[in-house]
Amino acid sequence: MSLILTFLGKGSINRTKIAIAAAKLLASQGKRVLLAGLAEPALPILLNQTLAPDPQEIAPNLEVVQFQASVLLERNWEEVKKLEAQYLRTPIFKEVYGQELVVLPGMDNALALNAIREYDATGKYDAIVYDGTGDASSLRMLGLPESLSWYVRRFRQLFANSDLGKGINESPLIQPLISSFFNVNWTADNFAQPTNQVNNFLDKGKAALADPKRIAAFLVSTPDPIDVASSRYLWGSAQQIGLTVGGAIIVSSETNVNLSEEFAPLKLSVVPDSPTGDWQPLIDALPNFVEQAVQAPKPIEIDIHNRQVRLFLPGFDKKQVKLTQYGPEVTVEAGDQRRNISLPPALSGKPVAGAKFQNNYLIISF
Amino acid sequence: MSLILTFLGKGSINRTKIAIAAAKLLASQGKRVLLAGLAEPALPILLNQTLAPDPQEIAPNLEVVQFQASVLLERNWEEVKKLEAQYLRTPIFKEVYGQELVVLPGMDNALALNAIREYDATGKYDAIVYDGTGDASSLRMLGLPESLSWYVRRFRQLFANSDLGKGINESPLIQPLISSFFNVNWTADNFAQPTNQVNNFLDKGKAALADPKRIAAFLVSTPDPIDVASSRYLWGSAQQIGLTVGGAIIVSSETNVNLSEEFAPLKLSVVPDSPTGDWQPLIDALPNFVEQAVQAPKPIEIDIHNRQVRLFLPGFDKKQVKLTQYGPEVTVEAGDQRRNISLPPALSGKPVAGAKFQNNYLIISF
Repeated sequence: MSLILTFLGKGSINRTKIAIAAAKLLASQGKRVLLAGLAEPALPILLNQTLAPDPQEIAPNLEVVQFQASVLLERNWEEVKKLEAQYLRTPIFKEVYGQELVVLPGMDNALALNAIREYDATGKYDAIVYDGTGDASSLRMLGLPESLSWYVRRFRQLFANSDLGKGINESPLIQPLISSFFNVNWTADNFAQPTNQVNNFLDKGKAALADPKRIAAFLVSTPDPIDVASSRYLWGSAQQIGLTVGGAIIVSSETNVNLSEEFAPLKLSVVPDSPTGDWQPLIDALPNFVEQAVQAPKPIEIDIHNRQVRLFLPGFDKKQVKLTQYGPEVTVEAGDQRRNISLPPALSGKPVAGAKFQNNYLIISF
Repeated sequence: MSLILTFLGKGSINRTKIAIAAAKLLASQGKRVLLAGLAEPALPILLNQTLAPDPQEIAPNLEVVQFQASVLLERNWEEVKKLEAQYLRTPIFKEVYGQELVVLPGMDNALALNAIREYDATGKYDAIVYDGTGDASSLRMLGLPESLSWYVRRFRQLFANSDLGKGINESPLIQPLISSFFNVNWTADNFAQPTNQVNNFLDKGKAALADPKRIAAFLVSTPDPIDVASSRYLWGSAQQIGLTVGGAIIVSSETNVNLSEEFAPLKLSVVPDSPTGDWQPLIDALPNFVEQAVQAPKPIEIDIHNRQVRLFLPGFDKKQVKLTQYGPEVTVEAGDQRRNISLPPALSGKPVAGAKFQNNYLIISF
């Protein structure tokens, strides 16, 4: 199991520099590191190295990979075909080549997340440093296991209770028809199997995100007020998807940066704006990532004894945070992020007794 | 019909400043302008204005809207429910509230594109300036009509020819079953109707993208070499989705910028790095957007007479451009973008007779 480290912030060249320095730092500590970046020129130019869609070693303990959505899609397509062949008697997808598939919006994110999951599962790396887009889209990506699992649990139940869902299970006409096209008897149990597989994946992703020793983000900003405001917004948005933010890294040529209040209670590291290629001053100024991530506020705390859920939502004021309960779950909205809170059985389904927003915490009582 | 203008480049605060200046310039020329931005703090801080998910007038001829994916999803959900109710006898989705829906990766892009389409269709605006993410993800968004229409035409045909597809049309058992759950007889014709509706949408989107008087992008860069390389990469990638890039805007405090070669044959505008709030120097340095977009190289030219297709692919070298023909169409790969070229009947299905890459053009002969 690797530590997965990523960076959030507006200045993308600074973010990429910090990601490189972090990868070098961890590798120098003897950790086996994979630095993963996107298909664009900044990372290869800064590393002075051609990159490929498969990891290549560029220094002791340090490998680099460039995620290319087209290549990842092509590789995953083979898996999709196998899955189809398992279920459908006469597969359709087998006639489509991975090499002709076009990337649609959102696929980049889903494919990159899946690639990180696979590299993590190989056990070959102690740390994966992901140099992604560092913006709201990165948060959608890391929030995918939780958001997708909400869709699965919400719609699966509705489908099972619907006329269509019941019809498939109960109609004497449907089963023989289905077995003429599918390799499986489409009973409730068989239908549950693939969704259970998916849920298992998603649960692992959610568990990893909830553990700051497994996945953590750090903010990267300059002292520019717009940059600071954007970083604070990303900080709050990260909490909304359950991602721990371990600290703020301020890139500045002046060491006397006064931004403690803006990012309290996070620790600040001031890193010099070093010329390209001069990595050591950056590396020396970096924080201890795991130590800080473990000490940082947890995005969510569920206190069953006191029947309370506490959500840390920095960067938002009271008016920007909304609590509703339209569906079967409690929905929290802040920034442009909506989160349905999956509660443990002791609190699940209970009506909300009260809610208050103070000191950056939304406290919900049941 | 509006002119839809957007900006590509790495420095997101510069990009947002240029978008604001462009909106102000067009409004000052008497055009009715909508400036559309994302849910994050840079745009409201630069405008010194709270923004909302509905357009508000901030100056004569100038309205601003902030796209919030959660709000857009909520509004679109009502349309999805109506569509479901048209087809399914006992709708399932009606029990799910728009207010509990979570945004998944890719939805931000699809929802923003749809919102732009709707604002365009109102006829209320002569120009829509979209301040998006300005990166590869923006290109996935603008390329969506073409990429999605490929999926529709490829998979629809395969499904119709498959055992499953034929079964649905021919089996005497299936029709009565379907009519017990659905409001329509699921014959081939009826099945075609919703996909035709979708195709109609997509065709309109493709036609708009192909017309530089309707949709154009401009590159925004600083003279920093990494920034320049990233902009060139985005330029080539934009050509791959069929988006016209009308020119390059270089933000620099020095007027003597020597980057003509890097962006040739595009025209360069050097815009000062103006302090926040001082818009006039920026506005004065902006190009004539439509005039330049019309003169810029077309991403694709199809010459039926000479049986040639010419694709303009700047920023890539010969090794980065790949031409394949696995499926029924010609596939061009460059950067991390794959494009299946939908050819007119005169060339469609013809084998490729030759291909060469010279002067930034991929020339395919049939």
